[in-house]
Amino acid sequence: MEKRNFKKLRPGANASKESIVFGIRAVEEALKANREIEKIVISTVAEGYQYATLLTMARNRNIAVQRVPREKIEREANGNHQGVLAYLSAVIYQPLADVIQHCQDQGRDPFILILDRITDVRNIGAIVRTAECAGVDAVVVPIKGSAMLNADAMKTSAGGLNYIPVCREPDLVETVKYLQASGLKVAACTEDAAATIFETDLNGPCAIIMGSEGEGIENALLRICDHLVKIPMFGRLGSLNVSVATALITYEVVRQRHYVV
Amino acid sequence: MEKRNFKKLRPGANASKESIVFGIRAVEEALKANREIEKIVISTVAEGYQYATLLTMARNRNIAVQRVPREKIEREANGNHQGVLAYLSAVIYQPLADVIQHCQDQGRDPFILILDRITDVRNIGAIVRTAECAGVDAVVVPIKGSAMLNADAMKTSAGGLNYIPVCREPDLVETVKYLQASGLKVAACTEDAAATIFETDLNGPCAIIMGSEGEGIENALLRICDHLVKIPMFGRLGSLNVSVATALITYEVVRQRHYVV
Repeated sequence: MEKRNFKKLRPGANASKESIVFGIRAVEEALKANREIEKIVISTVAEGYQYATLLTMARNRNIAVQRVPREKIEREANGNHQGVLAYLSAVIYQPLADVIQHCQDQGRDPFILILDRITDVRNIGAIVRTAECAGVDAVVVPIKGSAMLNADAMKTSAGGLNYIPVCREPDLVETVKYLQASGLKVAACTEDAAATIFETDLNGPCAIIMGSEGEGIENALLRICDHLVKIPMFGRLGSLNVSVATALITYEVVRQRHYVV
Repeated sequence: MEKRNFKKLRPGANASKESIVFGIRAVEEALKANREIEKIVISTVAEGYQYATLLTMARNRNIAVQRVPREKIEREANGNHQGVLAYLSAVIYQPLADVIQHCQDQGRDPFILILDRITDVRNIGAIVRTAECAGVDAVVVPIKGSAMLNADAMKTSAGGLNYIPVCREPDLVETVKYLQASGLKVAACTEDAAATIFETDLNGPCAIIMGSEGEGIENALLRICDHLVKIPMFGRLGSLNVSVATALITYEVVRQRHYVV
């Protein structure tokens, strides 16, 4: 894993406008220059060694590659795109291992938030804003199936994406196992849980998993969690907004850490 | 105060599309028929006894009237508007006294949420959704300076506006005094508070006041509250989204009521 400096970023360091690069050469250069890339899309009809090289480079850097109809690329790029386009990130991703190490170096219990396939940019932005306020150490998203962390996400996060490390992981099951091996308890928030967040011991090193509003959390993840927790509901509506639910469990961790004698 | 049936509304009962009526006769009929009206706008140049009659009827029903340039009405109404237009509500307002009475009849501690001039429709909708899930008894908004409870608010509330009583009050200072006289403790959420929500006793009959993101809570209200409380912040961002902050304090009331032995 490439070692990067884990210091919190300067304000504005990530505030670049959403942007794209297109064309074989430009995308290759972006990859070579280690630019942060949300994903690369390649035309379904593109083939040849140049594309194969791009695919290999992308895979080596854990960047999602999607095959799309040429017309879709046409709509985004205004120029000679050669059937390939890369969406640049508004954030600089950090290795999760560095975040955990950093917490341990400082003698603090890590507090990690894992977002399983949350696809709404505004929800992700809102969650990041709250997580930053609550002192969460890092937000983890999967490489595939998550909303792009672009300029919209930056705006909804009220700039929070500038301050909180974001980690992009290829396989969340492996991530949870890694966190558990590092001494963290992992709690998943799901309506089917028996215990509420208020009845569960969330003290100590911990990670919280939140799922998408539609699909919830992947079963493979639910099975290996240490706790399943829910937010108690007293009305007739079936569910809370995911960013609100995340705020409630995040601050319950804060309460248990700092306000229980 | 007109007595209305306080029963929870049928699903969909409030789900009418945002709509407007215009023209002297139509607005007068809407008022006479007791249609719920968010506000009435009258052209700055309109005068005469017919307008005066409308103004009196609106005042008697505690409906805000705004003088606007004729062109503004022109843009909204496509027909002979005669310089007057009414925005119909997506909700049926309830008298606050009925809500308090209803709680007392059921032997429950009232739990009221007061929104002081929150002008963003999406924030109000999001707050109502969470309040409904948390079992809040009513949401109180001022007649002037609040977002319109229209179809957008209904949508963002995920239908929550169908289930939770909304009360519209002419003067929030009087409302707070009335609630205090009815035995409720009133807590205002403000960054300047010394104590956090986790260190404050929010048990028993209570009302929570939340202010707008920009201006916070009016000083006259802050002065008469029983508690000032804040949400603890651990990051570099200065503030939480108001719908998130409301969710946190609302569920802290829930926790203290239901989950403290």
